[in-house]
Amino acid sequence: MTQSQKRPASAKAGGQKLARYLPILEWSRTYSRHTLGSDLLAAVIVTIMLIPQSLAYALLAGLPPEMGLYASILPLVVYAVFGTSRALAVGPVAVVSLMTAAAAGAVAAEGTAGFIVAAGLLAFLSGLFLLGLGILRLGFIANFLSYPVVTGFITASGLLIAASQIKHLLGIPASGGTLYDIALSLAGGILETNPITLAIGLAVLAFLLWVRSRMKPSLMALGVGPRLADALAKAGPVVAVAITILIAWGFDLADRGVALVGDVPPGLPPFTLPSLDMALWSQLAGPAILISVIGFVESVSVGQTLAAKRRQRIDPDQELIGLGGANIAASFSGGYPVTGGFARSVVNFDAGAQTPAAGAYTAVGIAIATLVLTPLLFFLPQATLAATIIVAVLTLVDFSVLKRTWRYSKADFAAVAVTILVTLGFGVEPGVAAGVLISIALYLFRTSRPHIAIVGRVPGTEHFRNVLRHRVETDPRILSVRVDESLYFANARFLEDRIYALVADQPDLDHLILMCPAINEIDASALKSLEEINRRLHDMGVTFHLSEVKGPVMDRLRRADFLSHLTGRVFLSQHQAVTTLSAQDQIVQ
Amino acid sequence: MTQSQKRPASAKAGGQKLARYLPILEWSRTYSRHTLGSDLLAAVIVTIMLIPQSLAYALLAGLPPEMGLYASILPLVVYAVFGTSRALAVGPVAVVSLMTAAAAGAVAAEGTAGFIVAAGLLAFLSGLFLLGLGILRLGFIANFLSYPVVTGFITASGLLIAASQIKHLLGIPASGGTLYDIALSLAGGILETNPITLAIGLAVLAFLLWVRSRMKPSLMALGVGPRLADALAKAGPVVAVAITILIAWGFDLADRGVALVGDVPPGLPPFTLPSLDMALWSQLAGPAILISVIGFVESVSVGQTLAAKRRQRIDPDQELIGLGGANIAASFSGGYPVTGGFARSVVNFDAGAQTPAAGAYTAVGIAIATLVLTPLLFFLPQATLAATIIVAVLTLVDFSVLKRTWRYSKADFAAVAVTILVTLGFGVEPGVAAGVLISIALYLFRTSRPHIAIVGRVPGTEHFRNVLRHRVETDPRILSVRVDESLYFANARFLEDRIYALVADQPDLDHLILMCPAINEIDASALKSLEEINRRLHDMGVTFHLSEVKGPVMDRLRRADFLSHLTGRVFLSQHQAVTTLSAQDQIVQ
Repeated sequence: MTQSQKRPASAKAGGQKLARYLPILEWSRTYSRHTLGSDLLAAVIVTIMLIPQSLAYALLAGLPPEMGLYASILPLVVYAVFGTSRALAVGPVAVVSLMTAAAAGAVAAEGTAGFIVAAGLLAFLSGLFLLGLGILRLGFIANFLSYPVVTGFITASGLLIAASQIKHLLGIPASGGTLYDIALSLAGGILETNPITLAIGLAVLAFLLWVRSRMKPSLMALGVGPRLADALAKAGPVVAVAITILIAWGFDLADRGVALVGDVPPGLPPFTLPSLDMALWSQLAGPAILISVIGFVESVSVGQTLAAKRRQRIDPDQELIGLGGANIAASFSGGYPVTGGFARSVVNFDAGAQTPAAGAYTAVGIAIATLVLTPLLFFLPQATLAATIIVAVLTLVDFSVLKRTWRYSKADFAAVAVTILVTLGFGVEPGVAAGVLISIALYLFRTSRPHIAIVGRVPGTEHFRNVLRHRVETDPRILSVRVDESLYFANARFLEDRIYALVADQPDLDHLILMCPAINEIDASALKSLEEINRRLHDMGVTFHLSEVKGPVMDRLRRADFLSHLTGRVFLSQHQAVTTLSAQDQIVQ
Repeated sequence: MTQSQKRPASAKAGGQKLARYLPILEWSRTYSRHTLGSDLLAAVIVTIMLIPQSLAYALLAGLPPEMGLYASILPLVVYAVFGTSRALAVGPVAVVSLMTAAAAGAVAAEGTAGFIVAAGLLAFLSGLFLLGLGILRLGFIANFLSYPVVTGFITASGLLIAASQIKHLLGIPASGGTLYDIALSLAGGILETNPITLAIGLAVLAFLLWVRSRMKPSLMALGVGPRLADALAKAGPVVAVAITILIAWGFDLADRGVALVGDVPPGLPPFTLPSLDMALWSQLAGPAILISVIGFVESVSVGQTLAAKRRQRIDPDQELIGLGGANIAASFSGGYPVTGGFARSVVNFDAGAQTPAAGAYTAVGIAIATLVLTPLLFFLPQATLAATIIVAVLTLVDFSVLKRTWRYSKADFAAVAVTILVTLGFGVEPGVAAGVLISIALYLFRTSRPHIAIVGRVPGTEHFRNVLRHRVETDPRILSVRVDESLYFANARFLEDRIYALVADQPDLDHLILMCPAINEIDASALKSLEEINRRLHDMGVTFHLSEVKGPVMDRLRRADFLSHLTGRVFLSQHQAVTTLSAQDQIVQ
C-alpha cells in the first residue's frame, strides 16, 4: 500500500468521525428537491398537530402557554443537526411535562417566577446530563429502566395526567402530585364547578373521542382516501381549538367565569439563561436525571421502531447528544424539557419525512404561528386544552401489561404493579425509583438461586441430562452437578450449601463433577466458594472436578492459580469426565 | 400400606421437624461421658481465652467491662440450644464491637447511660432481625455481601480498631469513627501521653507478638509437645493480664495516672429490658441490620469451615435462629451484640469440642469468673486490653486481597478498594453500604453488556464456534449469533442494538438465527426486545429464528405467545437450523 492510497482513507475516516457527531453532514450530502418536498409536507402536518399540543403540555406542566411554543422551535433545529433519527419529532410531551410540573412544584409554587426558572433549569440540567452520557457513550444506563417499569410508569402517569386535568374541565382550582391528593383537592372544590366550562370541556372531549374512533371510517365511507382521512382526523384538536376560540369570543365567555388562555406574548422566543443558583441545581439534579432517562427511553424506542421500518438505524449514544442539545437549546430559548413524542413522530413518519430537516421546517412553522396566531389564542378555553390532553394520554394507559406479565413471570408482574401503585400513590419520582429498585432486587433474587441439576448419562449417548427429568445412568461414587447460571457473589454460597447437602447425603461418594457449560463468569466471591468447596470436599474425602469450562472462565481460573489447588481435574467434556473417573475407580478396586 | 405402618413414620417426621428448630434434641440423644469430657476440656480452654477478650471487646465497644462478660454467658447457653454448629464459640467479637461503638456513638455519648441502652437495643434489634430472617428462611440475603466487600471491610475495620486503641496505649482521650478523625484526635492529645501507660502498653504488645510468633517453636524446642505448646501460646493474653494486674497493684499505678479497668460489679448478669423508645428503634434499625449481616456472614463462614473438617453440615437458616436467640439473650442480660468469633471457634474446635454443649460449659466458666475474679480486675491497666485488641485484630488486616483481586478481575478489585477506602474514610456503615452498592452495580454492568459472538460451522462437524476465534464456514444469507448470558432488562436493548447493527451491515441477509444455549432466563423486558427484533427484522426483510432454546425458557416463550408471531422457526440444534435454511434457500433460488 502506498502513501497516496492511504491518505484519502484516513481523510475519509476523519470525515466519518465528524459525521458521527454531526449526522447532518451525512444526510445533507444527498439532499434533493424530492426530499425537500417530502420533508416540507410532513412539516406542515406536524406543525398543525403541534400547535395545540404545545399549548396543552405547557398547561399540564403548569407553565405559561408560550413556553410550550418556545420549546417547539429552537430545540427542533438543534435536534435536526445532531439527531440520528430521520422521523423523530422532538418537542414537549405529556409524561415529561407532568414530571416537570412535579419537580418544579417541589421548589416553587405554580404561577410564580421561581416555577418558570425551575422548569428552564430542568431543561438545562437534563440537557447537560444527556450530553454527558452521550459523550461518554453511556447510553446503556437507560437500560436499567426495564420494560415493566417503563410501561407501568407510563400507564400510571397517564392516569395522573388525566386526573390532573379534571380541574380545568370543572373550572376549579386544584393541585396535587398523587391520585389521592388530586382527588381530595377536587372534592374540596367540586361545588364551585363552572357549568359552561364543564360543558365546553365535555363537548370537546366527546368530539375528540369521536374523531379518534369514528371520523376516519366515516370519511372513508364518504369516499375520502385513507391517507387524507387520517390527516383530517389528526387535525381534530386544531378544529376543536378553532371552534371553541370562536365560541369563547362570540359569547364573551371570559365574563362568565370560563378560564381562557389569555395573553400570549407574540414574537420569537426570548434568550434566557439557566439559573446559576447552586442550591436549586442540587434540588433539581435528581428530577432532571429521571426526566432525561424517561424521555430518552421513550424517544429511542420510537426512533428505533420507525428507523427499522425503512431498514435504517439510529445510534442511541448520538441520540443522547441530539436530545441533550435540544434540551440545552430549550433552556436558552424560554422553553422547558423536551423529548421525542410518540404520536407526533408517527405522524411525521407517515407524512413522509425523509430527514431530520423536517423537524427544522416544523420549527419554522411554529415560529410563524408564534408571530401570527398568538392574538387569537387569547380566547382559547383552558378546558379545550385539558380535553386534548386527556384524550392524548388515555392512549398511554395500558393495564393489559398487568395481565401479560402475570402470565409470563410473577417477578415482572411485581415490578409493574409496584411501579403503578407507587407512582399513583406517591408521585412520579418515587414511582420510577421504586420500579428500578424492585426490578434490580428481583433480578438479583432470581440469579441468587440458580437452577442446579444432578445429571446422568442418557444411555448409549454422550449426553448428560437432569436425573429428575430423564431416564439416565449414574454411578453412586460419582456425582455430576450442573449449574445453569454464572457464578457470582449472590449465588456462590447457595451453590456451596447445595453441594455440601448433596455430598452429606451420599456417603459412598468419591468424585464430584461440576458441569459448567452455562457458566459465563466466575467472580472473586464465587472463586472463593469454589476454593472452599474444593477444600471442604477434600476434608470429606471427595475429589472435585470441573467439566465443560468455557474459554474465558478457564483463563481466569488459571490466572488465579485455582487449578493447581484443585484436587481433581478439568475435563473438556462431561462424557470424558465420567468415563475417565469410572475406569480409574475400577482400577483402584 | 396399613394404618399402623403409617403412624410411626409421621411421628418421626414431626420429631425431625422439631429437631430442625431445636438441634439440641438431635445431638443430646447421643451425648456420652466421652463427649462430656471433650466438651469440658474445650470449655476450660475457651473460658481462659474469653475472659480477657470479653473485657477488651467491651472496652473497644466503649462499654463497661462487665458488659463483655455478661455478653459471654446467657447468649452462649441460648446458642447451645438453637445453634447447629458444633464448634462455633459465640460471644463479643472485634468487628461487631467496633460497629456497636459507631452505632451507639451516633445516638449518645460514650460513657453515658444512653450509650449503654443503645448497645443493648442494638443486640435486641439484631436478634429480632436474625430471628425473622431465620423463620422466613431468608438467610440468602447475607450472600449480597460479596467476598471482596467482606474482606475489604474486615481489613479496614481491623485498621480502624487498631487505630482506635492507640489512645489507650498513650493514656490520652481521643475519639472518632474514621481514620482521619482518630488521627486528628490523637494528634491533639499526644503531648499528654502518660509514659508509664505507654510503657505497659508497648511491653504487652511486644510480649503478645512474641508469644504469637515465637513461643510455640521455642516451647517445642524445649521438648514441650505441640498441642500443649499451642495451648500455652493461646494463654498469652491471660498471662499478660495477670502480670500487669500485679504490677499496677504493686506500684500503685492508679496514682501515677495509669487508666485501670476499675470497679467491675461482681455477680451474675442483671435482667435488663431493651428500650421501647421508638425514635431510638428507628435510629438503630439500620446499624442493627448491618451488624446482624456482618456477624452472620462471619459466623457462618467459620461454622461451615469447621463443620466440613468433620464432614458435618450446618444449616445457615437455623444458624440465624441460633444467633438471633443469642443476641436477644444478650439484650435481656446486660450484654451487647454477639456473634461467632473466628479465633475462639478454632480454639474450641482444636481443643476437641464435640457439641454445642461446650459453649454452655464455657458460659458456666465465665459466670464463675464474674462471681470470683472481678475484684482482681480492678487493677487491670486498660493499655493491656488495648494491646490485646491490637494483636488480635492485626490478623484481620489482609491487603493481599487487593493484589489477588487485581489479578483476577478489575471489577472485584474496585469493590475491595472502594469498601476499604470508604470504611477508613467515612466509617463502618458507609463502608459496607458502598461496598454492597458497588458490587451490585458492577455485576449489573457486566451482565448488561454480554458477550455476543457471530458463529460459524467448524468444517466437517456439527459444532458452531465464534468466527473471530476459529476457522469456520458461514453463509452470507444466514447470520448466526450466540449470546452468552441470560437476557434481562439491562442487556435486552444492548442485544437489540447489536443485532440491528449486524443486520444493517449485511444487505444480502435473509435469516438471522439467535443461538440460545447459554440463555437461562428471558424476562419480560427481554421478551419485548425479542418481539421488537422479530418485528423490525421482518420490516427489513429478514426472518428471525432461534436455536438450542432451553426447556424452561421455551415453556415461557410458548406461554407468552411469542412463537406464533415469530417469523422464523425454533430449531433444536444450530446444525439443524443452518442445514435446513441453506437447503430451503437453494430450493427458492
